[in-house]
Amino acid sequence: MDVRAAVAFEAGKPLEVTTVQLEGPKEGEVLVEVHATGICHTDEFTRSGADPEGLFPAILGHEGAGIVVDTGPGVTSVKKGDHVIPLYTPECRECEYCLNPKTNLCQKIRSTQGQGLMPDGTSRFSLDGKPLHHYMGTSTFSNYTVLPEIAVAKIREDAPFDKVCYVGCGVTTGIGAVINTAKVEPGANCIVFGLGGIGLNVIQGLRLVGANMIVGVDINPAKKEWGERFGMTHFVNPKEVEGDLVPYLVNLTGGGGDYTFDCTGNVDVMRAALESAHKGWGESIIIGVAPAGAEISTRPFQLVTGRVWKGTAFGGARGRTDVPKIVDWYMDGKIEIDPMITQTIALDDINKGFELMHHGEGIRTVVTF
Amino acid sequence: MDVRAAVAFEAGKPLEVTTVQLEGPKEGEVLVEVHATGICHTDEFTRSGADPEGLFPAILGHEGAGIVVDTGPGVTSVKKGDHVIPLYTPECRECEYCLNPKTNLCQKIRSTQGQGLMPDGTSRFSLDGKPLHHYMGTSTFSNYTVLPEIAVAKIREDAPFDKVCYVGCGVTTGIGAVINTAKVEPGANCIVFGLGGIGLNVIQGLRLVGANMIVGVDINPAKKEWGERFGMTHFVNPKEVEGDLVPYLVNLTGGGGDYTFDCTGNVDVMRAALESAHKGWGESIIIGVAPAGAEISTRPFQLVTGRVWKGTAFGGARGRTDVPKIVDWYMDGKIEIDPMITQTIALDDINKGFELMHHGEGIRTVVTF
Repeated sequence: MDVRAAVAFEAGKPLEVTTVQLEGPKEGEVLVEVHATGICHTDEFTRSGADPEGLFPAILGHEGAGIVVDTGPGVTSVKKGDHVIPLYTPECRECEYCLNPKTNLCQKIRSTQGQGLMPDGTSRFSLDGKPLHHYMGTSTFSNYTVLPEIAVAKIREDAPFDKVCYVGCGVTTGIGAVINTAKVEPGANCIVFGLGGIGLNVIQGLRLVGANMIVGVDINPAKKEWGERFGMTHFVNPKEVEGDLVPYLVNLTGGGGDYTFDCTGNVDVMRAALESAHKGWGESIIIGVAPAGAEISTRPFQLVTGRVWKGTAFGGARGRTDVPKIVDWYMDGKIEIDPMITQTIALDDINKGFELMHHGEGIRTVVTF
Repeated sequence: MDVRAAVAFEAGKPLEVTTVQLEGPKEGEVLVEVHATGICHTDEFTRSGADPEGLFPAILGHEGAGIVVDTGPGVTSVKKGDHVIPLYTPECRECEYCLNPKTNLCQKIRSTQGQGLMPDGTSRFSLDGKPLHHYMGTSTFSNYTVLPEIAVAKIREDAPFDKVCYVGCGVTTGIGAVINTAKVEPGANCIVFGLGGIGLNVIQGLRLVGANMIVGVDINPAKKEWGERFGMTHFVNPKEVEGDLVPYLVNLTGGGGDYTFDCTGNVDVMRAALESAHKGWGESIIIGVAPAGAEISTRPFQLVTGRVWKGTAFGGARGRTDVPKIVDWYMDGKIEIDPMITQTIALDDINKGFELMHHGEGIRTVVTF
């Protein structure tokens, strides 16, 4: 079938919105009509060419929401008409990883997904007979996409696509880092570095679980208002701190953060996040994606004196199980999404969405189809 | 009173065994007659001058066992005649750290201990009227020493001093890293880097908790027999591995260690230990003390994909609570100590003990008084 997609033909070039061909779902796969998709920094990481594992040409996009319109043979967990959110981290519920409660990193289709292919080793997308790569197993920058059934989370039908698409990445990553990875307790003092689309969701996750101090750190003073809107209790602009940031934060929090979160992808900030965690028990969670080849460093004494260094992918969430719950929380008013969707645009304007991200003024741009 | 002690007068010089003066215990302090003390790499770290916080002249030693012979005013938790193990990590049971179940790093007397002084800011040791520094709050290279009562663990009276002194550091550090810090579950696959006095205790800790694979890694082939004696199931000599060590260990353990332990103090080994932990859930515990200024590094991707980097001090043990239990385990035959005490010498020969440590042939040298 002909579908309308934004294609990344080459690293560093703008996307091209054009008509491409999509094969129907094979065994265990579903065809989803995408109704909305967010534009995330990870898409830009790949589009720009910074991602050393980026493949081209490809159809990017991994933060979508839509409706199942066809199913391949053997599909049992969803049916035509189901509202779903595509999952770049699937949940097969039978691999070694899914069966281990300590991780969410389902490996069932890892290798083909990494190669930009469906689990059978082929692509469903093509242009003029030549295959296009899938991206993160989701390729939501297209009005239709094909996914393995283990890579869609069924959600309630009254949830608006142009908001809950954000649950497909940013919301779940931020809130999940708090509840699944850090397992923050009520009353904890926390520090969040970087108040973008992930950081703000960490902040509202901390509000949700009853954290005490929620300190936001950003060099952009405009983020103060943003952070406070979602529960931040203290704002620190490193440019306005005299002396070193780490001792300032340790002092502010009475010994350091019980939990600190890096949402910047900057390895120097990751170090500051670790070192501003409380001696004895502070945990620091890396959420941001660092540039290729970048390394984190610290003195081992930081760990020997009780700090713990962790990371999280997709907020430690098991998509088919956890994403519907987070959508419920949104619908119940426990968490907010609407104010974070600062622009809604058409697919034809998708490159404008990437530009908006660079300016850093809004939080999330969503493409609606 | 006159006591007999090995004094470190200057960094890098041999210790001098001589008669020094010791004041009696002040409020909250006890006088302990030291019956035995181990010689640990941390003593050598300071003696050699490698420790940037080392103070001289000082009476080193932190792995002792003895009998309380006098108590200062207000002492209630121990009495004359009690058998005790000095604690370089005290347990006051009332500071913010003691009241937090996530840490063992009691801070009650931290600052004075770091200055080589008793909690009142003075030293009990002197020579010709000039004060000598305490060391790690214990100074067990002396036939008598003074300690705060919160820094002694009362143990059973039938435990032999020349063996259980080792519980004062090495045994507790190794076994505690397994049970308190890593909380290793039965059936876990584990990798231990460095089979010295700490590594062998990690190995017997892993045997105690029912680990599955217990892989020991050491460049000294003689350590194979040592490791096997305490429960090691596989020995890897990095010099005999073709190609990189990390993928070799990941393959050997079917994906990486569920828990890995660095017992070397080498930051490159610490990195290898982290990276040979299992994707998704592997935890790596730093036990070794690194050279001043040395830093650990890795790509943040290692953490984002689920590995956890931790450290441990005194095996996460709360000394007054946990040390008596570990002594009981030794007396009950649950753990072994005797084979690890490879030399017993007199205080006058203490410098020979340091030399033996450099040769790396034995495991632990104990000084008996």
